[in-house]
Order: sequence, then structure tokens, then C-alpha cells
Amino acid sequence: MDKMVFKGDIVFTSIKDKLEIYEDSYLIVENGKVVKISKVLEESYKDYPLKDYTKKLIIPGFVDLHLHAPQYPNRGLGLDKELIPWLETYTFPEEEKYYDLEYSRKVFTRLIKDLWSVGTTRSVVFASIHKESTKLLMDLFIESGLGAYVGKVNMDRNTKKELTEDTATSILETEEILIEYKDKSELVKPIITPRFAPTCTEGLLEALGSLAIKHKAPVQSHLNENTSEVIWVKELFPASKNYASVYDDFNLFGQTKTIMAHCIYNTDEEIELMAENGVYAAHCPYSNYNLSSGIMPVKKFLDMGVPVGLASDISGGNSLSMMSIIAGAIQASKMKWLETNKELAPLTFSEGFYLATKGGGSFFGKVGSFEEDYDFDALVIDDSSLSDIKELTIEERLQKFIYIGDDRNIIARYVKGRKIEKPF
Amino acid sequence: MDKMVFKGDIVFTSIKDKLEIYEDSYLIVENGKVVKISKVLEESYKDYPLKDYTKKLIIPGFVDLHLHAPQYPNRGLGLDKELIPWLETYTFPEEEKYYDLEYSRKVFTRLIKDLWSVGTTRSVVFASIHKESTKLLMDLFIESGLGAYVGKVNMDRNTKKELTEDTATSILETEEILIEYKDKSELVKPIITPRFAPTCTEGLLEALGSLAIKHKAPVQSHLNENTSEVIWVKELFPASKNYASVYDDFNLFGQTKTIMAHCIYNTDEEIELMAENGVYAAHCPYSNYNLSSGIMPVKKFLDMGVPVGLASDISGGNSLSMMSIIAGAIQASKMKWLETNKELAPLTFSEGFYLATKGGGSFFGKVGSFEEDYDFDALVIDDSSLSDIKELTIEERLQKFIYIGDDRNIIARYVKGRKIEKPF
Repeated sequence: MDKMVFKGDIVFTSIKDKLEIYEDSYLIVENGKVVKISKVLEESYKDYPLKDYTKKLIIPGFVDLHLHAPQYPNRGLGLDKELIPWLETYTFPEEEKYYDLEYSRKVFTRLIKDLWSVGTTRSVVFASIHKESTKLLMDLFIESGLGAYVGKVNMDRNTKKELTEDTATSILETEEILIEYKDKSELVKPIITPRFAPTCTEGLLEALGSLAIKHKAPVQSHLNENTSEVIWVKELFPASKNYASVYDDFNLFGQTKTIMAHCIYNTDEEIELMAENGVYAAHCPYSNYNLSSGIMPVKKFLDMGVPVGLASDISGGNSLSMMSIIAGAIQASKMKWLETNKELAPLTFSEGFYLATKGGGSFFGKVGSFEEDYDFDALVIDDSSLSDIKELTIEERLQKFIYIGDDRNIIARYVKGRKIEKPF
Repeated sequence: MDKMVFKGDIVFTSIKDKLEIYEDSYLIVENGKVVKISKVLEESYKDYPLKDYTKKLIIPGFVDLHLHAPQYPNRGLGLDKELIPWLETYTFPEEEKYYDLEYSRKVFTRLIKDLWSVGTTRSVVFASIHKESTKLLMDLFIESGLGAYVGKVNMDRNTKKELTEDTATSILETEEILIEYKDKSELVKPIITPRFAPTCTEGLLEALGSLAIKHKAPVQSHLNENTSEVIWVKELFPASKNYASVYDDFNLFGQTKTIMAHCIYNTDEEIELMAENGVYAAHCPYSNYNLSSGIMPVKKFLDMGVPVGLASDISGGNSLSMMSIIAGAIQASKMKWLETNKELAPLTFSEGFYLATKGGGSFFGKVGSFEEDYDFDALVIDDSSLSDIKELTIEERLQKFIYIGDDRNIIARYVKGRKIEKPF
């Protein structure tokens, strides 16, 4: 387990602008971390166990920076409404069910199996308001061997009665999970998860910000997804400068590491604040299509220095596959390019790939790349069924896999050097 | 073969606004055509052979109204350019290869196998300029049992030297195919295929229009895909009123049944002309994303009475699956809705499904629906892997299949009542 050599066609990105390609090379792993990549296997590594994936692509595992586990049964359903009515009509009624641990287990095992299938080795996940169900989700992730941040959702207003928490209980339960799961697993960690500003009172947000700082715990929420939501937040928080500063005012915006999903309608000021505070943007192109939200100007965020990753946003998004989400993000950026009169350049292929690997992976630490000392999270891709007509370069093979491949092409998954078998 | 009963959960659209759903019902087929659907199997049909697909969905086969067979090796590649440089850099160099019949066979058998896989039972296809390769493609479609219109491409200017036809030869070879394949197969027919206005001289267009009328042959081409292309056409055809009327002036715009791919930048006048002449629009959402072309206002075409179908446009498009193209078309229409200040309503789910079945199918005649006397082109969908968490309605099951299913869910394919096995 602690020393290994992988042989194959190795591809990753250390910067977004360029793929690093090592054809038919050796990647040395020690204690779950990348030591080096070399064209010739050096003498000192010749006694390491060799995993021979010759002619296969070896790429970093995918990172999904935003998805809702309890919405999984709704994947592909209920996509005829915008955000707020969608929440009320389809989503809250589903999320209500997770007091039921048997149902929770059924859904979560299925979700985790499917994440494994599509090669998502790390994800950042919303659970529901239910404490026990949230813990179950974390335990199941631990059992699977995949990496995840999982957050119990906090909501104490503006939702169904059944999902409206008592503020004090919400805070207590959140802290209980933070303490219980802080060191339970190296790969699965808790994250503070106010659903979004409209469903949280100021008192709740304030307490969650304090918990974040007290426990050095990360934070996730939603920001500027839909124009009606943006107006609503302005009405609910008249004292805050803008939507981003609602979170910032309560220490939930980069005071500890933070992800904000969507960020379609950010003002320049809000983007700047994200850059300054190091707040991640989770770009969810399919969800933003499905709920008629709009297209996030990803390139602008990258240009202004905001860390960005990609996300499925199940079940606003329908696709769980980061391959198709990379393609979707590049496609959406081309429409944004037209919309901005060709000012905001479209994402390149390497940028798309970077966002789904190192871009989101950096939220987890040294994850999403094969640079020295990075966790060896990897997928082995047998693309022979995609590349059997004409000779292709390694870059073209990767591009074919991303644009037209699927889980059938993924023949092995590793997290921190450990091979992960199909869970459950 | 000529009498059959199918049992299952039957779904189709006769009008775009509503799914027709027959739960656990019987569909009677005689001589390849739908006779009726009933909840209870009537006495007179009880001795017909029964295909029992209980609990499975039975839906019309998908129709792909526009794709380029010789571009298949490029699927998922070369998506970093707009139309004209994309043609020059990636597409023409690939299309040049089809003088080679061995390479043609390798590509076309793969394409047809994959069309079979994803449940596309009828397609309208561009071949290349090469006569023999075009004939081979038609023969392979005939062998497969799938339905298709296949066109030898005509180009006599503004392309690579190797792809520039002598005008007279281009016309002669086109007519040769029209005659040879007119009655060779009931399911595979020739179609006249000027690539697009810029690569055709007026002499060529005029002759092709005459051939269309002489042989009552259908026509396909491209229209208003990219803003630079539109400007170029204006320069090349100063005498024509607009891009659409270039084709119309030469009897290539509905004088016989006609499909125009893309139609993103049509003026109202051009849309009206399509409606008047009954010219089909083939909407190719993924291609239009990939080549940064823009988003077609599909709803406007529907509202103005233009017949519309969906298409993969391989290899400008990356996805061959009409399921994902339905989802893509609905998603794109939502962005168009935002872009038009919420004036042009997004496509509904039933509209998307209609476009990929009866919408495009009507180009083939009574195809794409299960109304009486329609060809029984059908897919049998085992969606049990998609619907195993909670109870779903039949409409929800279909929606899940479209949004998150794939070829693994398709367990049988029929064309005109005949079961089609995996070809080659």
C-alpha cells in the first residue's frame, strides 16, 4: 500500500492553461502521495509493486464541488421551474423525508455508488437538516473510501414547517457533528452549511460564523443563483451591502475556507470580495440551465483571481458525471463569450479539465494534480473503444473521453493511493 | 412478422404539447404499422404473437435530422474554433479521406452501430463528395435495417483543392445516385446535399434544384449557423434577398421536401419563408454550443409554423444520443428565454420529446408517433436502474430516461415493425 509505481499515459494540469502530458511514463507513489513522474523507471523504484496501465490514460480523480445528497431521487425530474418555486414544489418535499434513516441509506448508498462509477473521488455535499441522516451519509462516505465534505443543512425560516429548525437546536446539532467528525476520518470531514441566506435568520448565521471560527471549520452555501433570489436577499438583509456581504458580515465568507455555489449574478464588488477572501465559486452549468438561472461568467472569476471548481449540483443539475460537466462548462462559456460581445474568452479544454480536478481539488488541500506531494487520487481510463478509428494524440484521447466517454471507460479509481472498489 | 402485439407502458406525442400515455397497454402492429392501442387486448388480436414488455417503456424511435457521417472520427475533437476555421482546420482534412473505401467502411460501420446503440432509428445524413463512399454508406444503412436519407455532398468552390468538385461531374454523380437508389430500399433514400451556399457556385445550385424537381428528390443544407457565414453569403450572392432565398431562388427550399440545419440567425422574413414552403429546421444545440455559433430560437420557429426536428450534427456536435440532445435543446431554450427577456417560452419536456420523435420523423412520412397507420419505429426502455429509489409516474420515468439514461437502458429497437439487431 505505501509504495507503488503506476505506468501509463499520464495527464494532469498544474496550471489551468496547459495539460501536462507524460506518455508511457512511471508515476511513483509513496504513502498515498505522488513522489515523481519519470519516462524511465529509476533503479531505486524497481522493487516497488508496479501497476501496469500501459496504453491507458491516468488522470486525477474528479472533484464535485457542490451537490445535494437528499435530492438524488429527483435527479432528472422537476426541471420546469425556477429556483424558488422549484425548491417549494420538488425539493423541500423530498428533503423532508430524511428523518427516515432507512430511506436515507437507500438514497445515499445509491448516490455514493454512482459517484464512484463516474470517477468523482472527492465531493462537497449538502445533506438535509436531519442530524442522524447527515451522520449516516458521512459514515457511508467513510465506508466507501471516497473523500467528501458533508454538511448538515441549517434553515430556520422561509421553508416548509417540517424543515424549519429551532435555531438553538440547529446550532447545537451542527456543533455536535463538528466535534464528532472532526478527526473521525482523514477523508470525510464536516462543513458548516447554511442553506442560503433567505432560509437563515441573522441569529443563526451569526452562530454558524462563530462555530466556523471556533472549530476552524469550512463553510458552504449558495450565492446569486437567480435574479428573484437576489432581490429577496436584498429585502431580507437591508443592512448588508450586497448578497456576498450577508455571509461576510457573519464570518461565513472566507474567514474559514468557503465555497459558494452558482455566483451567476455577482457584482464586480462581490467577485473582488471572493478573490480577497479566497472564497471558492462552484460553477454548476447544467443546474443553471435547468432552473433557467443563467450562465456564470466563469472566465471573469478566473481573471479576477477567484478559485473556481465545477459541480453537478444534483438535483438542480441532472448530470452526475464531471466529464459531461466539463463539456457543459466549456459550452456555456462559449455562449457567455457571444453574450459579452466576444469579450470574455471561452474556457479552453485545459481550463475545463483543470477546474474539475485541481481547481476544485485545492479545496481539499493538495488534491487534483500529480505534482509532487499531491494525494494520488486517480482514474485509469481505457479509451480504446473511443479511439479505435484513427490515431490520436494523448490530448485528443483525453478530449474524446471528456466529450463522449462515460463510466464504462473508467477501469480503476484511487483515492490517496488506495484503490477504491465499488462500494456497498 | 406482419402481425404483432406489444405490451408495456406506451408513451408518444401526437401533438407537441402533451405526452400520450397508455399504462400497461397493448399496441397492435400489422405490416409494420400501428393499428391501435388498447388497455385490454381485444379478442381479435389474441392469436397475434405477443411481445411482452410489461413494466418497460415503449416509445417511438429517435430521429436525428442532421449529421455528417465522414466527420465521425472527429467526434469530441476540434471544438476550439468557429464554423469557417473549424471546417478548414479539422473537418475538410477528415472529409478528404473518403476516396478510401476501406476507411469509409471502418467509419460508417462504427457510426451505424453507435446510432443503433443510442436508439436513433432514422437519420438524415451528409456523406462526403465521394460517390462510391456515399453509396457504401447507403448500402451499410440498408444492411443495418435502420432508416436514413443519405446525401452525396456537392461542393465546387471555396474548399480545399482535394474537395473541390468539377461542377458537371458533381451533377452527374448526384443524378447517378438519385436514379440508382430511388427504389433500392424502402428505408434508405438519397437526398440532394449542397453543402452550403458558400461552397456552391450558382451553376451548381441551379442544376441541383433542377435535379430535385426532376426526381422529386428531397434536399438538405445549412442555413444561418454563424454570423461570419451569413456575411460571407451576402457577399457571394449579392442578387439574393437573403440567405434563405439563395436556396429558394434555385428551387432548393421546399420545392421538394427540405431540411435546413441550424437556423440560428434567420430573420423573421426567412422564418416566414420556411413556414410557407414547409422547410424543416434541424436544431443542433450541442453543435451550436461547441462551435460558438449561438442558440437557435426554436420556440419562435414553432410559433411561426416551421416544422422542426432535433439533430446531433456530428461532429460539430459531440453527442450522438437524442436523449441528451432533447435535454440540451430544452436547456438551450431556457437560456434563450432569459436572453429574450422571458418572451420566448422555454421548450417543455413534451415539446423536446416531440421534436426528437414526430417532429423530425414527419420528414420521413408517418414516422415518430404511435398514431394509427404510423410506421412502428420503437424503442423498448428498461428504466428499472433509474427508477429504483421512489415510485415514479410514467411521465417521470420517461423524463429520467431522457435526462439521465443512456444506451444501456434501451433493450430493443424496431423499425417499421421489424426488430433490428446490432448491425455488422
